[in-house]
This record gives sequence, C-alpha cells and structure tokens, in this order.
Amino acid sequence: MLIDFADIDSRKAYYWMGSTIAPRPVAWVSSLSGDGVANLAPFSFFQMITATPPTLMISPLVQSSDRSFKDTARNIGETGEFVVNLVPFAMVDLMNQTSVTLAPEHSEIEQFQVPMLDSARVKPQRVAGVPVSFECRLAKFMPYPEEQPSCVVIFGEVVAAHIDEAIVAPDGTVDPAKLDIVSRMGADWYGRTRAEANFKLGRPAGWDQRRKD
Amino acid sequence: MLIDFADIDSRKAYYWMGSTIAPRPVAWVSSLSGDGVANLAPFSFFQMITATPPTLMISPLVQSSDRSFKDTARNIGETGEFVVNLVPFAMVDLMNQTSVTLAPEHSEIEQFQVPMLDSARVKPQRVAGVPVSFECRLAKFMPYPEEQPSCVVIFGEVVAAHIDEAIVAPDGTVDPAKLDIVSRMGADWYGRTRAEANFKLGRPAGWDQRRKD
Repeated sequence: MLIDFADIDSRKAYYWMGSTIAPRPVAWVSSLSGDGVANLAPFSFFQMITATPPTLMISPLVQSSDRSFKDTARNIGETGEFVVNLVPFAMVDLMNQTSVTLAPEHSEIEQFQVPMLDSARVKPQRVAGVPVSFECRLAKFMPYPEEQPSCVVIFGEVVAAHIDEAIVAPDGTVDPAKLDIVSRMGADWYGRTRAEANFKLGRPAGWDQRRKD
Repeated sequence: MLIDFADIDSRKAYYWMGSTIAPRPVAWVSSLSGDGVANLAPFSFFQMITATPPTLMISPLVQSSDRSFKDTARNIGETGEFVVNLVPFAMVDLMNQTSVTLAPEHSEIEQFQVPMLDSARVKPQRVAGVPVSFECRLAKFMPYPEEQPSCVVIFGEVVAAHIDEAIVAPDGTVDPAKLDIVSRMGADWYGRTRAEANFKLGRPAGWDQRRKD
C-alpha cells in the first residue's frame, strides 16, 4: 500500500518509520548538567557516522509539550561531554526505568540506583556492567530543522572505549555470540543481538575497499 | 579493557565501533545520476532522525582510495532524490551483490537484474519484493568533517512509503513477526528481525509524552 506522507500527521509518520527502520541499537547516554546533576536516558535514534575521526550520532527529540530540549541534549550542549553505554539484556528493565519523567534537578542514576564507574577521559560516569561504553566529546550540535527544531542531532567524537573482555574472542575480535545487547523495534518490541537468527555473509567477489558505491 | 582512541588508527576505530554499535538497519538506496544511470547500494550507517518533518539519515563513507564521493552520495547531491528500501532476508544475497565495485556508468540494477518498480513521488525506482520503501527528497547534504570529509551525512525527508500489506496485522499495525528484514552487525555478521529472541517491554510507570529526557 502507498502512504503519501503529505496526508498523515507526525504521529503516524513516527509510527511507520519507527516500526520499520529497525532494529535500532540503543544508546544509554550519561551526561552532566552545568550544575553537576548526573543524567541517564536511552535513545534509539543512534548511529555510527564515520571512523575518521571516530564519530557517532544521537538525535534526542525535543519535549512534545513545549518543544524544549531534553536534559540529555541540554547537558551535552552545556558541558560538551557524554558517554554512550550499550545495554545488555540483563539490564533492560533498568534501562527502561530511566526513560521516565524526572525533573532536571533529579538524577535517574540516584532514583534507580544505577551502578556507575568513573570514565577515563570525560567527566560523566559510565554505567557499570555494560559490555561497551564510548566516551564522547561534542563535535556537532544541530537543532533540526533549524527554523523550528523537533530534535537535536548531536555528533560525538569517541575519545575512549571500555570493552568488557568477556565479549572478546581469543583472537582479539568481538565475539557476536557473547555480545548480548538489546535493540529497539516498533511499539513495545525489542530485539537481542544474541539470537539464533544471526548469520554470516562474506563480501561478494569483486568487492574491495575501492568500491564505488 | 580501556581503548584510548588517540592511540589507534581509523581502521581499528571502525572495527570497535562497527562491531558493537549493532544491530544496524540496512538502507538499500536507489538513486539516479544526473545522466540518468540508476544506482543501488546498501548502507548501514542509517537511522531515523525525527518525524517532524519525517526525516531519515544515511552516511555513505567517501572512497578510501581518493576520498571522492560514492555514486550514491554524488547522485543524491545532483538530483535531490532517493529511495530507501529495507532488505528482506530472502533478498540478502542480491543486496550483498550490489555492494561490489562498478564504474559510475554501470548500473548494479542491470548487472544483477534487480527487479524494480516505479516510485510514486520521486524519479528513482524502488526495489520490487521488499516489505518497505521510503521515497525521499534531499533535506541536508553535509560532507563531514567539513575540512576533510570522510563521509557525507545525508538527511532525506520521507514523502511517501510503500508498505507490503503482508507485514500489516488486521488492526493496521506492523506485525513484527512478519517483518523479516536484515540488519548489520560486526565483520561478516548479520541479524534478522524475525528472531525468537525478540521480546516486548512496556513503558515504565511514570513515563509519558512529557518525559524530561
């Protein structure tokens, strides 16, 4: 069926896109306000951008009530640092709890007693017990669209990563059978990377680093 | 273990990020050059940005040999239109074939006999047999980083979508058990959305549309 996006509202557009642009990896982002209040919240509009320099992106939506920035976006704009933690299946309920509404002066980390560890290169702490944390410095802060922003596209340059040795194979590569992180699908659905359905597929003949597209 | 990104090269940074920022949905992008040559290529640096207006993002890397834009990025810059097709498991080998090196004047669509259908609102065709295609108009074209681009971050506004009725449940919502699309993990690994490991998780008590972060 054809859906003309000129005929539907944002809520419907969100539904069709969010239900099919999937699975989306989850960035569980810790940040600090200018006043030092620690914040932790999950975002699934999250992706790698390039490795030169190593850059990832998150796109927190603005508050639907008054279009103000969410705490995470405001904090990153104020302090220029954040940590992206990937969410192990074992912590998915705790991650889900941190998506609730708290006033800016209250910390999800204290409220839900999330275990944290110091970071190596940035001030916001990282979540303890996750397989991977990326410490990031703000590289680009882009309210979008400019005229009337509905989100803030944030590029972070990765300055350090913490990798749990339990997910690393003897040859030094990540073992996908051990990386058990969650991803977001439509509505209330989530996926897990540790799935029977995963499969390997090599590059085709003729593929090389100089590929044209 | 701690990895200081100041100590590793781009190839290593790519590996650690690409192996753990996962699973990534795959955008199988069709576009037309200014001369009318049809191009089709897969990209996993792909994500939703916002629904107001409905916007998605792809980030094709530049050619590693000479840092020139790939055909897809150049085409979209020239013509301002593209279609993002999601890849059903049944077409994953064909998708993989279209990642090969072809000269700009040759079309992957002809070379690999990919079945195509006309789009409703844009000139590039969409792939036949996929569950979802998003017809897009260029909204932002951003070589990044500006000084010496290693990728082109492309925002597309979705103007229309084609949804296969086979993935829609009787109540009009997407049935995740029927949406069998592939996602990219590290190295040669892929995932499928139709996985036994998928699970449901409702929003926590206290969550609402006015949540602060």
